Amino acid sequence: MELSSRAELIQASPIRKLMPFANEAKSRGIHVYHLNIGQPDIKTPKEMMDVYHNYSDKVLAYGPSQGLEIYRKDLVRYYKNHKINLQIDDIIVTTAGSEAIVFALYVTCNPGDEIIVPEPFYTNYNGFATMAGVKIKPLTTYAENGFALPENDKIEKLISNKTKAIMLCNPGNPTGAVYSKKELKRIVDLAKKHNLYVISDEVYREFTYDGTHHTSILEFPEIKDKAIMVDSISKRYSACGARIGCIVSKNKSLMSSVLKFAQARLCPPTIDQLAADACIDLEKKYFEDILEEYKKRRNIVFEELQKIENVLCVKPQGAFYIIAKLPIDDAEDFAKWMLSDFNRDNETVMFAPVQGFYSTPGLGRDEIRIAYILNEESLKKAMYLLREGLKEYKSLKNK
Amino acid sequence: MELSSRAELIQASPIRKLMPFANEAKSRGIHVYHLNIGQPDIKTPKEMMDVYHNYSDKVLAYGPSQGLEIYRKDLVRYYKNHKINLQIDDIIVTTAGSEAIVFALYVTCNPGDEIIVPEPFYTNYNGFATMAGVKIKPLTTYAENGFALPENDKIEKLISNKTKAIMLCNPGNPTGAVYSKKELKRIVDLAKKHNLYVISDEVYREFTYDGTHHTSILEFPEIKDKAIMVDSISKRYSACGARIGCIVSKNKSLMSSVLKFAQARLCPPTIDQLAADACIDLEKKYFEDILEEYKKRRNIVFEELQKIENVLCVKPQGAFYIIAKLPIDDAEDFAKWMLSDFNRDNETVMFAPVQGFYSTPGLGRDEIRIAYILNEESLKKAMYLLREGLKEYKSLKNK
Repeated sequence: MELSSRAELIQASPIRKLMPFANEAKSRGIHVYHLNIGQPDIKTPKEMMDVYHNYSDKVLAYGPSQGLEIYRKDLVRYYKNHKINLQIDDIIVTTAGSEAIVFALYVTCNPGDEIIVPEPFYTNYNGFATMAGVKIKPLTTYAENGFALPENDKIEKLISNKTKAIMLCNPGNPTGAVYSKKELKRIVDLAKKHNLYVISDEVYREFTYDGTHHTSILEFPEIKDKAIMVDSISKRYSACGARIGCIVSKNKSLMSSVLKFAQARLCPPTIDQLAADACIDLEKKYFEDILEEYKKRRNIVFEELQKIENVLCVKPQGAFYIIAKLPIDDAEDFAKWMLSDFNRDNETVMFAPVQGFYSTPGLGRDEIRIAYILNEESLKKAMYLLREGLKEYKSLKNK
Repeated sequence: MELSSRAELIQASPIRKLMPFANEAKSRGIHVYHLNIGQPDIKTPKEMMDVYHNYSDKVLAYGPSQGLEIYRKDLVRYYKNHKINLQIDDIIVTTAGSEAIVFALYVTCNPGDEIIVPEPFYTNYNGFATMAGVKIKPLTTYAENGFALPENDKIEKLISNKTKAIMLCNPGNPTGAVYSKKELKRIVDLAKKHNLYVISDEVYREFTYDGTHHTSILEFPEIKDKAIMVDSISKRYSACGARIGCIVSKNKSLMSSVLKFAQARLCPPTIDQLAADACIDLEKKYFEDILEEYKKRRNIVFEELQKIENVLCVKPQGAFYIIAKLPIDDAEDFAKWMLSDFNRDNETVMFAPVQGFYSTPGLGRDEIRIAYILNEESLKKAMYLLREGLKEYKSLKNK
């Protein structure tokens, strides 16, 4: 029985597809350090957990398609604290950031249309593009200069009459790059010049280091009808399992269409929205502590990578990922091998091969993404295992 | 700034689009009986609520993309009790039934392909079809014969080389029809003959009355590579706000594609899955009591409708909706008027105009869908208000 073309086209998640090898290792009694997925070990705030514990409605009912009014109202306040001025109707709550991106693609693009995305990019953008029948035109960025946005001519070369939007992830997963206001202004001007939407995935807003500052696409009034922001609480409150995000735009007709797509799927999860709402006024100290912790982790990983011969990486300024270029040919094979054939004292480490984060064939084959989402001690062990594994793997390959 | 064609095409939910009129009525102090939406007033089971209250993990983490293993394992047992024999890999947990339907369309159809759906149908199928770029070819069924499936020649007339699937809702929303094994066998044979998928939305499985029995599409081994079942706990456990459903098929390559779409959006909500899992072994008595209650409600609505002159309806055998043909020209106008201009002692009633449940233009303009989801006393009042409203509306129109 034949499947659809998109069913054949859809990419297996390069982050998740090696999971069977990890599970097989675990069944052999091997402990696996998971640096492959952005699942932080940070405790979900008590404020949030209390909502689940104290939920007292007798019927777990549908909420409004646009999200619970109280939550959207409180989100206005949250964004205001981040210098983003919104009305409640500029916000529609979604089932995580994933749904927000799919909605953004539905309303801006027809099947066959194109969007420009700096690569390497969050690999699930491929899946969302397949869902919406949209083609991603990759704009290659390079580890060597911190994955900065290329010059305008490189970007304009990719614009065709099918191009509908530029999609950014800022701070960047998997790059850790944070775009400056000046870099963003270039994108804004290009969007104006070529009449393109800008879809900005800002789920790592809080995660910037060394005095770097995050700029939202919504801070540019000159493209307020073209700017679409995508957000999620998954990383912010270490609540990946709640599946709460939102899509934000000041373009009223666009939001009215998003609402219709939202109505078709009825509503996002109800209690999870209330749980998210409880975090709106989390004290500043919560983020300061977390950032301090992530910064420490980033420094450990970066320093440990420096100790390995012929490994190239730049110190990321945001999110909690680092890309490392390894002195090998096939990082996916290496990642599998680390799970299937390697261990030290019954321990090994899992990371994500970066190849699947590039759209251009052949790129990223020698790169891995490390999510620094474990505590100091575990991270140190994991980096030791990476170093040892790399040594053994290389000597095997050179035989 | 131009939107996509599908952004222009997407239909506003006819169930939800009158909500602003209801809210406006409420702001004037009018009590609105909501018979417009399938949001039951039945208490969500304590077993389920206890899971939220007792959740003790410190990090609300991602689950697997295919759903929590324990829940999928327990679903195998649930279905076994309904004479459906499954392996765990035949099931992928989704964010409610909505996502399951969208996934089913993604993997069976390309943009531009067609599916045949008996109309009137659950109106959000239009939205899902727009998301997937699929065209719905409506197969008209009629209140007069209980919305039974038309003869084969009527169905075959709709089949083109673009037809990929027949999609059914059984028991039916909004019709209340329950397809007999014999009726389904006809569809199964047609699917075999024309090499079509059958997508069967069975979220009202438990809701059958008067000795009627629900038959699943998965009970036909002769089309096991073509059968896709869509399910949800929303109605079953009165847990619409949990957003937990699943997609089930024995077609392994199809499920392997569904999994890739599932990986792109990472996972369904975590605690809500655990809550759903707690209901798997709900005692039979839970459903017996609920069915008794719904049957009573159905009878009230049906009897009250019989008392109104020139109203046509058949007694539904399943789900919790009834379609009534009213002696007026425009049920949507009437529904609005009931909210904007009518009340008795500051009370009115809201129902869903059925026009939006038909795909064929012009059909259903004089029909409303009543969801009998309120208690006996409220239902009686609501039906009184409908009768009074109809009398007043008609006399106004005849002036």
